[in-house]
Parts: sequence; C-alpha cells; structure tokens
Amino acid sequence: MVLPEPVVLSLIPAASILGIIFAIFLWKRVSAIQLTGGRLISSQNGREYLLEEQQGGGEEEVVAKAADIQKSISEGASSFLATEYYYLGIFMVIMAVVIFSLLSIVKPEGDRTHSDEVRNGIFSTIAFVLGGATSILSGYLGMQIATYANARTAVEARKGIAPAFMCAFRSGAVMGFLLSGFGLLNLFLAICVFRKFYGDDLRGLFEAITGYGLGGSSIALFGRVGGGIYTKAADVGADLVGKVEKDIPEDDPRNPAVIADNVGDNVGDIAGMGADLFGSFAESTCAALVIAAVSDLGNKHGYTAMMFPLLVSATGIVVCLLTTFLATDFYPAKKISEIEHALKMQLIVSTLLMTPVALGVAFWSLPATFEMNVPSSTPDQPFDVKVVKNWYMFVCIATGLWGGLLVGLQTEYFTSNRYKPVQDVADACRTGPATDIIFGLALGYKSCIIPTIVIGVAIYVGNTLAGMFGIACCALGMLSTLATGLAIDAYGPISDNAGGIAEMAGMGEDIRERTDALDAAGNTTAAIGKGFAIGSAALVSLALFGAFVTRARIDMIHSSILEPRVFAGLLLGAMLPYWFSAMTMKSVGKAALAMVHEVRRQFNTIAGLMEGTTRPDYKKCVAISTQAAISEMIAPGALVMFTPVVVGALFGTQCLAGVLAGSLVSGVQLAVSMSNTGGAWDNAKKYIEAGATEHARELGGKGSDCHKAAVIGDTVGDPLKDTSGPSLNILIKLMAVESLVFAPFFYNCAHGEGLIFDFFGWTQ
Amino acid sequence: MVLPEPVVLSLIPAASILGIIFAIFLWKRVSAIQLTGGRLISSQNGREYLLEEQQGGGEEEVVAKAADIQKSISEGASSFLATEYYYLGIFMVIMAVVIFSLLSIVKPEGDRTHSDEVRNGIFSTIAFVLGGATSILSGYLGMQIATYANARTAVEARKGIAPAFMCAFRSGAVMGFLLSGFGLLNLFLAICVFRKFYGDDLRGLFEAITGYGLGGSSIALFGRVGGGIYTKAADVGADLVGKVEKDIPEDDPRNPAVIADNVGDNVGDIAGMGADLFGSFAESTCAALVIAAVSDLGNKHGYTAMMFPLLVSATGIVVCLLTTFLATDFYPAKKISEIEHALKMQLIVSTLLMTPVALGVAFWSLPATFEMNVPSSTPDQPFDVKVVKNWYMFVCIATGLWGGLLVGLQTEYFTSNRYKPVQDVADACRTGPATDIIFGLALGYKSCIIPTIVIGVAIYVGNTLAGMFGIACCALGMLSTLATGLAIDAYGPISDNAGGIAEMAGMGEDIRERTDALDAAGNTTAAIGKGFAIGSAALVSLALFGAFVTRARIDMIHSSILEPRVFAGLLLGAMLPYWFSAMTMKSVGKAALAMVHEVRRQFNTIAGLMEGTTRPDYKKCVAISTQAAISEMIAPGALVMFTPVVVGALFGTQCLAGVLAGSLVSGVQLAVSMSNTGGAWDNAKKYIEAGATEHARELGGKGSDCHKAAVIGDTVGDPLKDTSGPSLNILIKLMAVESLVFAPFFYNCAHGEGLIFDFFGWTQ
Repeated sequence: MVLPEPVVLSLIPAASILGIIFAIFLWKRVSAIQLTGGRLISSQNGREYLLEEQQGGGEEEVVAKAADIQKSISEGASSFLATEYYYLGIFMVIMAVVIFSLLSIVKPEGDRTHSDEVRNGIFSTIAFVLGGATSILSGYLGMQIATYANARTAVEARKGIAPAFMCAFRSGAVMGFLLSGFGLLNLFLAICVFRKFYGDDLRGLFEAITGYGLGGSSIALFGRVGGGIYTKAADVGADLVGKVEKDIPEDDPRNPAVIADNVGDNVGDIAGMGADLFGSFAESTCAALVIAAVSDLGNKHGYTAMMFPLLVSATGIVVCLLTTFLATDFYPAKKISEIEHALKMQLIVSTLLMTPVALGVAFWSLPATFEMNVPSSTPDQPFDVKVVKNWYMFVCIATGLWGGLLVGLQTEYFTSNRYKPVQDVADACRTGPATDIIFGLALGYKSCIIPTIVIGVAIYVGNTLAGMFGIACCALGMLSTLATGLAIDAYGPISDNAGGIAEMAGMGEDIRERTDALDAAGNTTAAIGKGFAIGSAALVSLALFGAFVTRARIDMIHSSILEPRVFAGLLLGAMLPYWFSAMTMKSVGKAALAMVHEVRRQFNTIAGLMEGTTRPDYKKCVAISTQAAISEMIAPGALVMFTPVVVGALFGTQCLAGVLAGSLVSGVQLAVSMSNTGGAWDNAKKYIEAGATEHARELGGKGSDCHKAAVIGDTVGDPLKDTSGPSLNILIKLMAVESLVFAPFFYNCAHGEGLIFDFFGWTQ
Repeated sequence: MVLPEPVVLSLIPAASILGIIFAIFLWKRVSAIQLTGGRLISSQNGREYLLEEQQGGGEEEVVAKAADIQKSISEGASSFLATEYYYLGIFMVIMAVVIFSLLSIVKPEGDRTHSDEVRNGIFSTIAFVLGGATSILSGYLGMQIATYANARTAVEARKGIAPAFMCAFRSGAVMGFLLSGFGLLNLFLAICVFRKFYGDDLRGLFEAITGYGLGGSSIALFGRVGGGIYTKAADVGADLVGKVEKDIPEDDPRNPAVIADNVGDNVGDIAGMGADLFGSFAESTCAALVIAAVSDLGNKHGYTAMMFPLLVSATGIVVCLLTTFLATDFYPAKKISEIEHALKMQLIVSTLLMTPVALGVAFWSLPATFEMNVPSSTPDQPFDVKVVKNWYMFVCIATGLWGGLLVGLQTEYFTSNRYKPVQDVADACRTGPATDIIFGLALGYKSCIIPTIVIGVAIYVGNTLAGMFGIACCALGMLSTLATGLAIDAYGPISDNAGGIAEMAGMGEDIRERTDALDAAGNTTAAIGKGFAIGSAALVSLALFGAFVTRARIDMIHSSILEPRVFAGLLLGAMLPYWFSAMTMKSVGKAALAMVHEVRRQFNTIAGLMEGTTRPDYKKCVAISTQAAISEMIAPGALVMFTPVVVGALFGTQCLAGVLAGSLVSGVQLAVSMSNTGGAWDNAKKYIEAGATEHARELGGKGSDCHKAAVIGDTVGDPLKDTSGPSLNILIKLMAVESLVFAPFFYNCAHGEGLIFDFFGWTQ
C-alpha cells in the first residue's frame, strides 16, 4: 500500500514545521530563566533550594556579571560570524558564477538541447545559493541559541545539576530541531518550486537540486575550518600561557584570551558543526534523490516513491521529538553520574523508535519491487538494472541507523573517562607528556577499527541490496535521528561555555565542579557527534560518488583499481586529507603562537592584571583569532574546492573517481583517529582533575605533574579534535558533491578523458 | 643486440661476488682501527695529530673503556637476536608447513596435475625458507658490523671529524654491499637450482620463487617490529627518567637503560632495516620475474630477457661500488658542515651513474619489442596483451631511480635542521611541547605530498608503458642503488652508537660534539633511507598486487571500485595501518613504562648511582626490552600474517584486492608522515642543542625550556619514526606477497568467491 501523493506532500512540510514549532516551544522554556539577579528568585524556576545553594558574593552581582560576560561572548561571536559571512558571501557569488558558466557551456548531447544545459546551469546555481543560505542561517541561529543559553546554564548550575542540565539540553534541542526542520523544509520547497519548471523531467530536476548539497557543504567547510581555527587558536593560546605558564585556572577572567576562547566554542563547535551536519543531511538526501531519479523511480512509480528519502527525514524529526521528552520530562539527569546516561539514552531510544517507523515508511511509500540502475559491467550497455524490493530499503535504513548508534557507542567507550582506554591514557601521564601523547595517538588509531567495519558492512549491504541508492539510504538512516544527534552535540559547547562563565563570574568552586561534570559529558557527546558526522559523511560521500560515476558515464571496467589513472588517483586522494590537515594544524599552531605572544605581552605590560585589579584587553585577542581564522581558511578551502575541478578537467573523470575514493578511505581513518585522540586527551585531563575514583586521585589531581602532562596532551588534541578532524568530513563530502555537480562539465572536457591526456593524445 | 645467456649467467654472480669482496675489503680497512689503547699510536691510523687532540683521562683507559662498552653492546645485541631468531625459527617452521599444506591441497585445473601443485608447494616452501634465512643472515651480519664499528668510530672521533666519518661510512658500506651481494647471489643460485627441476616451465619456477620474497619480508616484519619495540622502549625509558627527570645527559653511563638503548640501535635500526630493504629487493625482483614469466617473456625471447630484473640489480652493485670511492677517497667529509653533503652526494652520483647503465641493460638484455599480459577488460578473455618496447623499460627504471632520489631529497628538506621546516618546529618549542608537537605533526602530514605524487607518477608511467611489469621495474629502479642507500642508512645508527660510547667512556665534551654532528647527519640520512624504503615498498607492493590479481584471475570488471566487495575491502585495508600502528605504539608505550619504573627503581634504591660510584644493573633493563620486544611483536605480526589468508579464504579475492590497495594508499601516507615527523622532532632537538646559528642560540640551548619541550617531542617521535612508521612498509609489502603466494589456494576456496559468501550463496 503506497500513500497517495497529497498525503506525502503534506506530511513532509508538516513534520518540518512541527520540528520548528517544538524548537520555539523549547526556546520559550529556556528563556524563562532570567539573567537579571533581582527577579531570579521570583521567577518560575526559582525553586526553594535556590537560596540554600547559592554561593558567596552578592546574588545580583554574580548574575549581572554572568549576563555581562554572555553579552561579550555573544557580541564577539556575532561580529566574527558577520566577518566570516561577508567573505563567504563573496565566495558564494564567485562560485555561483563559476557553476553557472561551467554548466551552461556544456555542449548538449543526445536528445538534450542547449536550453536544457542552460536551465541546468541556472537551477543548479539557485539550489547552490539556497543551500548556502540555509547553511549560513543554521550556523547563525545555532550560535544565537548557544550564546543565549550558556549564561543561563551557568546561573541554573547554582541551583543544582538538574536545572543546569535541563537548560543546556533544551537549548541543544532547540538547535537540533530548528536545523533539521529548516533544512528539510527548504529542500522540500525548493523541489516543489523547481518542479513547476521541470515538470516530469525528474532527472533534470534532481540533478539541479544537487546544488543544494554543494551550497550547504561549501559553507560548512569554511565554517568548520574558520571556526575551528578561531576556537583553537584562542583555546591553545589561552591554555599555554594561562594554565601552563601562569598556573591560573581555565577560563580565569584575568586571562586576556578567555573571551576569545568562549566565543570560539560558539563559532567553531556550534555554528561550524551545525553547518556540517546540515550539509550531510542535504547531501545524503540529494544523493538518494539523484540516483533514484536517474533510475526513473519517480517516473514509473509516482512521486511518493521519489519522496522516500525526505519521508525518512520527516518521520525522523517526529521520532526525535518524542524522544526528547524522555530527557526533559520523564527521566531527566539529577546527579552528575546520570548525565552521560541521560544523553546516551537519547541516542538509543531514538534509534529504537525509528526502526519500526522506517519499516512503515518503506512499506507505505515504496512499490513492492522497483528497478535501480547500477554502473554497467559491459562496455556496450549504458547501465545494468537491479531489481529491488521495498523491504530492502528498510534494511538499508536500519543498517545505517544501528550502525550509527554502534559507532556512537564505541566512540563513547574510547573517549569517556568512565572506561579503561581514557583511564590508561591518564595513567600514562605519570611518566610525563610524551607517554600521554603516545598512548593517546595509539588510542585514536585503535578507535578506527569498529567504525571502519560498520561503514564497510553498510557499504556492502547497501550496495548489494540496491546499488548506490542503498548506500545513500544507509546514510539517510544514520542521519534520520539528526535532531537528537545535534541536540546532544550542541549540549557540549553550551556546557563548556557555562563553565567558563561560572568561572569568570566568580561563582565558586562547587558550581564550577558541576559545570565541569556537565562539560565532561559534553566532551563525550561531542565525540559521539563527531563519530556520527564522520560515519554519515563516509556513506554520503560514497553515495555521491556513485551518483557522480553514473552521471560521468564511468563503467565498471574504467573504474578498476588496476587502471593506472584510477590507482594513481586513489593514492593522491589518500594524500589529500594529510595535506589538508597539515594546513589546518599549522594554521592553528601559527595563530596560537600569535595569541600566546599577545597574552604574554598583556601579562607583562598591563600592571595589576595578575592580581585581578585591571581588566585585560579582551578585544585584541578576539581580533587576533578573527584575523587568523579568516586568512587561514582560504588555503585549505581552496585545496578542497579546486581539487575536483582541476583533476576532473585536466586528468579526467577516471582519475577523479580514484581521488574521491582515495580521500574517502584515508580521510575516514584520519578523521576518526584525530577526533577520538583529542577527545580522550581532554577527558583524561578532566579525569585527573575530577579525581572521582581511587585511581584518579592517585594521579595527583590539579596542579600535579600528571595533570601538567595531561594539559599538554589536551592542548595538542585541541586542533586535532576541533579543527582538522571534523573538517575532514567535509573534505570528503564536498569533493564528492562538487564532482557530481560538475560531472557534465568534466564529460564535456574531452569526453571525460581530461584535457592533459587529450592534449598528448593519451586517450583510451 | 641481446647479450648471450652465458654472459648474463656469469655477470650476475660476478657482480654479487664483487660486492661481497668489496665489503670484505672495506671491513679490513675498518678493522685496522685498534681498540687496544696501547697500540693505537703505533697503528697505521695513528697519525701525528692524534696526540694533540686526545682528551683528558688516560689514553689507554678511555679506549679500554670504549672496548668494554662495545663488548656489552655486542653481547646484548647478539643475545637479543639469538632469542628473536629462536622464535622466528619456530615461526618459520610453522609457516613452512602452512605454505606447503595450503598450496599442495589445491585442486589442479586445466592441464595442471596434482604433482604440479605439490611441486609448487615444495618449491615455494623451499624458497620461503631460503628467503627467511638470507634475511636472518643479513640482519645478523649487519648487527655484527655495526657493533664492531661503533666503538671504533668513537675512538676515531678523538682524532677528528674526517677519520670518524670515514669509519662510520665504511662500516655502513660494508653492510650495504654485503647485503645486496648476498641477496642477489642467493636469489640467483635459487633460480639456477630450481631451473633444474622446472626446466622450461618458467611460469611455475618464478611463481615458486615468490616464496623467497615472502620469507624475506616475514622475517623483516618481525625484525622491524621486534627490534623497533626493543630500541624505542629502551630509548624512551632512558630519556624519560635520565634526560627529563634526572637531568643527566643522553647516554650517561649512570643511566641503567643506556646499554639497552645502544643495543636497540643495532637490533632495530640496523638488523631491522637491513632485513626490511633486503625484503624490498627480494620482492620487487620476484614481482618483476613472476609477471614476466606469466607473460612468457623468457619462453619467447630467451633467458637473458627474463633475467633483466636481476641484471639491473647486479649493475647497480657495480655503480654503487664506484660511487663509494667518492666519499672514501676523492671527497671525504673533513668538516662538520660537509657530512650531510658527502652523504647526499652518494645518492645523487649513484643515481646519475646508474641512468646510462640502465639504458645499456635495457638495450642489451631485452628484445626490441615484446608482449606483456595485462588484466582482461572483457569477461570472455583471460588477459589482454600490451606491446612493449625495450626503451620503455629504461624509462620505467629511470622513473623509479630519479623518483627515489626526489623522495630522498624532499625527505632531507623536511627532516634536516639546515632547512626551514625543522627550524620552524624548533621555533615552536618556545611556547612549549604542545606547539612543538602540533607543528611536528603538521610537518609530517605535509611531507606526504611529494612522495605521493612521485609514486603516483611512477605508477602511471610504469603501468601505461608495460602494465604491472613496468611498476615492478620502477621499484627495481628505485632499489638499484640499494647498496648506497643501505650504506648511508646504516651510517646513522653507527654514529649514534659512537656518540653513546664516547659519552659513556668519558671522552669529553668536544668529542661528543663531533659524534653529535655525525649523528645529526645520520638522522637525516636515516629519514632519507626511510623515504626510499616506503617509496619502493609502495611500488613493490603494487607490482605484487598486480601479479596477485593476474594469478587470482581477477579481471578489470571485478576489481572496479564500484564493486561493494572491493570498496569495503579498500576501506578495511585503509584501516589496517592504523590498527597496526595502534598496537606497535602502545607496545612501545607499555614497554617504556616498564623501563621507566625499573630505571627509577634503580636510581632510588642503588646507593651511589647518581654520584657515579656504583654501576647500575644494565642487564635488568636489557632483559625488560628483550621480553617486551618478543612478546609484543606477536599481535601486530599476527595481524599482518593472518589478514590476507583470512580475507582471501573467507571473503574472496575481490575483497582481498581491495584490502591490499586500501592498505597501500593509506599506509604510504601514515608511514611517510610518521617517519618525517619523528625525524624532524629529533633534529629540532639537535638544532637547539648544537646552537650552530644565531636563531638556534636564541632558543636557549641544552637545559632551557625550549630544549625540554624539544626532548618531549623527540620522545614522542621515537616510536613513530623507528617502530610504527617503518614497520608499515613491511605491512603493505608482506600482505601483497603473501596474497600472491597463496593466490592458488584462494582460487581453490569457492573459485575465489570466499567461503563465507559461498556458504550463503552470495556468489556472482
């Protein structure tokens, strides 16, 4: 039984709008927390225990201070994003011209006319701009929510763990639902509008829609890289002088880089990450749509079947919405030990609930059997055909869904300090920073095993059941619980900032302990989120790669690893993540050095700074981070944006196919190991600081030699886990989606042979 | 004009024996340096300046002390190798049984009979044992030479830079020529003997000969891993307590781990590296031979054509021999600043001389045109045929030769402290160990770019000109100057040890400065050697992969990256280097922790140790390293040895092809970045210590905060550059050669579909 088209056409926007309304509802509840000290007690959150737990220092004074700091952070973040988006605006205009030009000059072949190509150029460009704009909006909204929530979480922490957790979690959920709702709604509206112009030419329509994914991911790349450099330059710079040299606590208001550090959490981890996951969602949907359209799924079986990918995402929003109540109303975390559990349950429950829903969607939107085109294995045929049953697609969605959970849980195992791996790393600090780093690197390398096997199985299952459409659906399945994933991911930086504000506002040691506990759980969920991001990025990128291969007319023979062009491409592709990481790591290092010099200068020249009687010049540090982030994001951004165009045009589509596959298989490992190594170092440090177990106390706690070694590890991990690692997801996705969008142009360059090979006559 | 067979058959052994004789000649010159103080002045090396330069302390006493230390090191190394080889002996017996069993049970197909398969089993096993035995012999001889030379180099350093350099370089050359001579001679003799049994069945002969490569590489794996863990456990352990905690110099005789550290240099860097490069030579030759044999090059064009790969290696020995005189007689290094130049010139000149020689070999041993079989692009044909001209093969050899030089020179650029990259890393030490490590990691990542492009070009050129035979010849070209490469590579650890002996024998500060300068150049040449090793390993492994694909009957279609089995294999393969490195890094970390505890215990409990009045218990530390190396080499060794057999038998040859390609493209990057990062950290430390430039002196020299940060970086780099990084070469080669040897067995398992897929009926 297949749902009729009007039902489907109303279900998707309804779910998106429901998600947005729910986000607004949560926002209302967060905004009930007042940031004006006087009214705090009389507000609806002012429960009786408030007065008992409040700390030394005037009540109003502390809250006013928190509000003041929040304002500085919010201003810093807004001003950085404004600068960043200004440059991204310029980039988008240039890129839009490039897309339109390269696609419109393509010589029409077969039954296509010149106006078909121009139309493809125009609509691809529109979709690109729309995707980019949605991504910018997502990042901006996420940042607004996070800066709005951080001071409130700090204020709530004075009442106890439960209200603080609630505030941070709800704010994270606001971001999760707003982004997934907006992303889906915009994509759906774009499809509806484009359909007016394309009519029944679904193939043309969805090929143009791919621009949406390209736009989303381009912005995400710059957001991740720029934001990542910003946040880590400030963080590393602040830590190196503050914690290591001056021996003052993290987030101490005397540290001149402290505001820049907190701004960084918002522009890097929140805005960057939001744009990244939005990009994954947009691309996996586009990949599934374009592959389905090439196979005439919509033309033969009606529009409902075509909308299957969007339906999965739409029902996912509803499932996540229901799951959220578990953490906010049924079983909220009340003790420190319950935080990680509460967040983990969000993932597990949403996965559990989504499974039967996915089965329903598969049965109610897909025909019992349908055909999918797969790359041809004989030279005389444009493609082979695979017969697919509707329940196969459920298997694909479920594989992605549960695979994502498995990757998430194993990431937790490797990065949470409740388990042995991180405790071993903490233990290695006894013998100094060198062993800490050796053990941390080994941990990251080891953590690649399970995700790789999961992704490998998903690839085998997806491709065997339904070709590249199956792989795209695995990615969709992994991302179907995106709203929950984003919520628990955004929770991390919000808690981190709350801790910073608590410290700066002078809220006292035990409030700081609570925010530290919230933050430690946040580090783990951030690592889980990164696990999801890289897992889905790998699948998305492979699906896009499959669509590219189809569109570039590469058959099985010409994509053999025995072809020298393919193999050389594989090798070069495998090198790209390293080149990219070299740039981003060095950028962070350079910016951090500049920050260190500035912070030292302020400590040395501003009298009374160390004593806390004079305010440091925060703005100078904010300016250094901004400057570094903007100028340093250009080179790695250019590497990713230019590589597919240059390789595709000059060396041909075969070589490009190799490059995409190579960067995927190598980038996944590097990204996973970097994220987990960094997360483990961070939590090893927190483990020693918190001293929650006998073993942890043995290591000596804050200020001990062990702790100093752990701080060094943490500092090394900063660029790995927050700049280079997560940017690699975007590298592999973006190169794939860009290749897909420009596939007709590459084919136009000497029939995909590449201009250089064509020039020398080395064609096949 | 093709040389007649008898000429060829005498040229190859003649060149090998010439190499061995030359090695003995050099050995004689090194052994003229007496290690008995009394006779030193009257020996032929006792020139007039000896008396002027000798340092405080009785002349005889110091030399006797050096001789005594050398004896301890030599005994330690011999005893470790004896233990290691005992276990390797057991491994070889088991493996020999496995090889014989799996190959003999293969069901004969086509015109092959059961006795053909049994014969293949027997001779593959014999070749395996012979390769393993040659590798063991190479490692053992290398170690003997190095321990013989290190004290002599220290003693010579008292006379000046020139004699010390000469001693270290000549000893390195002894090893280089002995290994290349023996390797070639044994292989040649094996071929001659096997030919008596195989007659004109060249294909069968050379398929069996591949066992020689497998034997060589298996031993190399355990040698590298075991030796690497041994040396780095001792080194890291010694540094962490000695340099970091107790603030005593490197190689101070008060440090209980100091003998183990020096033993480690010999068993890891010398014996391990010798076995590694011998393995590369054996495998590249085997790969070229087996591909040529499959193509009937020998049957159609005579035995001379077939011997082309061996002729390249044979002429290479002669070219390297001539080049050596440049450093020993015409332009020896006389000043510190000339050392690196002298070593670099060895590489450049041998490459220059080899180029016309390779042209001659190609013209005088190959027919003007011949045919090569390449994988089939149509399902109905077993293979396609490519027409190859003899000068194509010269182009391949030259590509490998010059590509290797380019990789070597760029490695020098990234790891020598005369250039900006390492100086930047040293500069980053100003802000502590964290930035040192961030910059070092970025440097390593960046250093992947050129080698990858060089290997990519070699693959394209080789494969386009002559299929996989071309790639094998690129590898042969890169390894044709092996004797020189080995010589300058072995030079490093010999100088390193000489420095250790100088320190321990109390030879004074300025002697130590000379040995440090020799050692700094040695670090760079070691990095160059590692660059060669990984570059050639990539090409060798690809050539073996090509031979495997042919033998496993995989055509172009079934090796497409669009095949889910191939892609899943690629991804899993790309993960293997990470898994392997996680194990080896952690092993070093664990063993180093054990060493640290022992060294601390001795410092705390042995009275008078710190004051130098009591001798530490060196043997306890030697035992810890030995124990760790033997027990920790099992797991990573098993991973590499089992993976191809398990994947090939259970998941089929397609998946295995993916795994091999994936581990190659990912392993190359990881190995290059690890080696160069480690080398750069080491030389950044030496740069700060030496204080040779204004900039270096600014950083503060020994004992400053900068130097302490650099020492931490150096310690982290130890397992990267000497254990995990170089072991990865062997991982990628060994898996490929093992797959090649077992290809008939895999095909026997459900026609290469894999037993698991066959069991579930998921066959194609």
